[in-house]
Amino acid sequence: MHPEHATPEQLAALETRLSAQHQAFVRQGLALDLTRGKPSAEQLSLSDALDGILGGDYRAGDGTDTRNYGGLDGLPEAKRLGAALMGVDPGSVLVGGNSSLTLMYQAVLVAHRFGLTGADSAWSREAPVRFLCPVPGYDRHFTVCEQLGIEMLTVDMTPDGPDMDRVEALLAADPSIKGMWCVPKYSNPTGVVYSDATVDRIARLAHVAGPGFRVFWDNAYAVHDLHGFQALASIGDACERHGTADSVLQFASTSKITHAGSGVAFMSASPANLAGFKAFLSASTIGPDKVNQLRTVRLLPDAEALMAHMQRHAGILAPRFEIVLRALEAGFAGTGLGQWEAPAGGYFVSFDTLPGVASAAVALAAQAGVRLTPAGATFPYGRDPGDRNIRIAPSVPSLPELETAMAVFVNCVELASVRRMLAD
Amino acid sequence: MHPEHATPEQLAALETRLSAQHQAFVRQGLALDLTRGKPSAEQLSLSDALDGILGGDYRAGDGTDTRNYGGLDGLPEAKRLGAALMGVDPGSVLVGGNSSLTLMYQAVLVAHRFGLTGADSAWSREAPVRFLCPVPGYDRHFTVCEQLGIEMLTVDMTPDGPDMDRVEALLAADPSIKGMWCVPKYSNPTGVVYSDATVDRIARLAHVAGPGFRVFWDNAYAVHDLHGFQALASIGDACERHGTADSVLQFASTSKITHAGSGVAFMSASPANLAGFKAFLSASTIGPDKVNQLRTVRLLPDAEALMAHMQRHAGILAPRFEIVLRALEAGFAGTGLGQWEAPAGGYFVSFDTLPGVASAAVALAAQAGVRLTPAGATFPYGRDPGDRNIRIAPSVPSLPELETAMAVFVNCVELASVRRMLAD
Repeated sequence: MHPEHATPEQLAALETRLSAQHQAFVRQGLALDLTRGKPSAEQLSLSDALDGILGGDYRAGDGTDTRNYGGLDGLPEAKRLGAALMGVDPGSVLVGGNSSLTLMYQAVLVAHRFGLTGADSAWSREAPVRFLCPVPGYDRHFTVCEQLGIEMLTVDMTPDGPDMDRVEALLAADPSIKGMWCVPKYSNPTGVVYSDATVDRIARLAHVAGPGFRVFWDNAYAVHDLHGFQALASIGDACERHGTADSVLQFASTSKITHAGSGVAFMSASPANLAGFKAFLSASTIGPDKVNQLRTVRLLPDAEALMAHMQRHAGILAPRFEIVLRALEAGFAGTGLGQWEAPAGGYFVSFDTLPGVASAAVALAAQAGVRLTPAGATFPYGRDPGDRNIRIAPSVPSLPELETAMAVFVNCVELASVRRMLAD
Repeated sequence: MHPEHATPEQLAALETRLSAQHQAFVRQGLALDLTRGKPSAEQLSLSDALDGILGGDYRAGDGTDTRNYGGLDGLPEAKRLGAALMGVDPGSVLVGGNSSLTLMYQAVLVAHRFGLTGADSAWSREAPVRFLCPVPGYDRHFTVCEQLGIEMLTVDMTPDGPDMDRVEALLAADPSIKGMWCVPKYSNPTGVVYSDATVDRIARLAHVAGPGFRVFWDNAYAVHDLHGFQALASIGDACERHGTADSVLQFASTSKITHAGSGVAFMSASPANLAGFKAFLSASTIGPDKVNQLRTVRLLPDAEALMAHMQRHAGILAPRFEIVLRALEAGFAGTGLGQWEAPAGGYFVSFDTLPGVASAAVALAAQAGVRLTPAGATFPYGRDPGDRNIRIAPSVPSLPELETAMAVFVNCVELASVRRMLAD
């Protein structure tokens, strides 16, 4: 039955049946978590050789004693790993600590407060400062802006990436827009890979935008393919073509490759941006943890090792995505109650309910012991204007747990949808 | 001969002899480094068991899988290690990444830009913002202020710590003074341990200072004794007595205990300050490297292990300090050309030349291949008004290298002093 074509009586009967099923789930006392994009213990164990991998040899390839202070931008071999990950030149890479979010926060802070290319370039010399945020997007990007007092303007995602007509129009009209967040491959949460044309248009934005505009290119899922490597057009090459190398800062990390909490973070940037960033960094640290960089490089010495390692992750993750997609297909295909994409990588499935249903569905799931990211979290300020988007993160539960969680999820969305229809 | 009592002819003859000796050193083509307070390779090797110490067991005491994301303020056992190090309650401790300088930078940034106790408490709402800097002091403290646009006022160090009469008078007169840097034990570079009375007076400063005043208590050398443990009065207890718990933020790390570049940093603070700090932190990281915290705690499971470990460091460092002090004694006792203290711990010997001699002596040493921290570096803005202070860091060279370096140092200070006298 397609609920949108049901009579009020049919809807009421459906509500009764779905409610009964919901109560049955509630009585099971489940405790399942689909909230965050974390690797499972099984995935983490793929990298357990890290402990002890140095065999007492703490020397980097260039003779650096990694145990001591120093080296603001990381070991040469760690730069090469970051370069392989992001598809850039090692000379453009700065290696940070355990968190690419920290590097992104610092980069926005520097551009805003200190200026990436001298004090005159600090965004804070003008007010307001605005960012473009493709939605749905990554909540922690939005939190960075919120804490720094940067206003966020949303742009819808399309199957090719952000709606570039809209992006270009906004930038042309408003020179106070100083930045844009992008997760170009397996976008969080939609799973979209930006098309070649989108990448090229993003590389040209500096010609449209006001001075000091920067794209924050969070390539978090660069090698996180589920079904074989999928290429993303090189933003660096595109910027080279358009003479806009200063306009993009790229980020990645090994957090979802090795151990999530003790990975190695990378930034790739133009010489001017690197110089500005390092001037900031030199006041706040004597250098990153080089021992952990060396460990990571010993585990993943080259691109082949990296790719083989990611295939093992895919072997664990792909069945989980299949469960989610199968449940959505079985529950919603042809019903009009939901829309979703089948991502070929990353950590999420993004699901859009009917308007005004998402938060009720998430609340119902919580009653039944299935935790979902709060509805709205994928939008700036936590406000999804349509109350539609729910981010499903299937990596942590076991396969049987995930089957159960998705059964609950489908029932909750159906129930919340029907209740909404009855209320309208 | 006491050069200050020499005739011009005697001085000229002395200059000739010292110059010849200097040229002899220059011809040796030395390359020795007395600049930074880094552990030597021998010291670093004391902690080489860190690699592999987990034996594949990545679980913390409370069952936390340290490999994954999460845990903004650190593992419970790491908090206990930080508490033992700083002599505070584990509940007051936040565990950071590999750098206490980063925690200090972040704390100053939060207090300045965001407010440690709400937006209204942000120092930046008023201008100017000033800090008290005991001198000579730690150059990286001064760099933090300089980058954040905080004006620095100097206060002289005494054998009991900062000149507290002056500190109190300045604070009473100027409510724009929002902070003060302190290295309370084996102060960088003087080696002074703050007296009990000084610690007590510092804990009372909040009653004299304007709103939002904070002491940045960098307890970097808390257990870095050369000749047995020397107690520092507890600033926390003193603040408790005076009702000023919010006015002090304490910092420490294992950087000069385990591996300098991959240590674990700690902050101890009141509940209000911790809450404000964590609100900032939550936007810029998903958490610190907990695996490294676990490794560090496995190496140093309790206070006894920590103290035994530090005795091994002392066994390596103490002979180096003896060489420096013997050379200074032999070269300068009774000459009036220099003043110094014999520190009982820390990483430095602070040496004061006659006025206007330090930078010339450092330049001469550089000619002879002995690198010293630039004269002036121990003062805000790199400006030592007397051009007197030189920081000697003896930890890295071997014992024979250090003997040679000190012979060069003594000759350079003598030569620069005599030339200065001849010019006057």
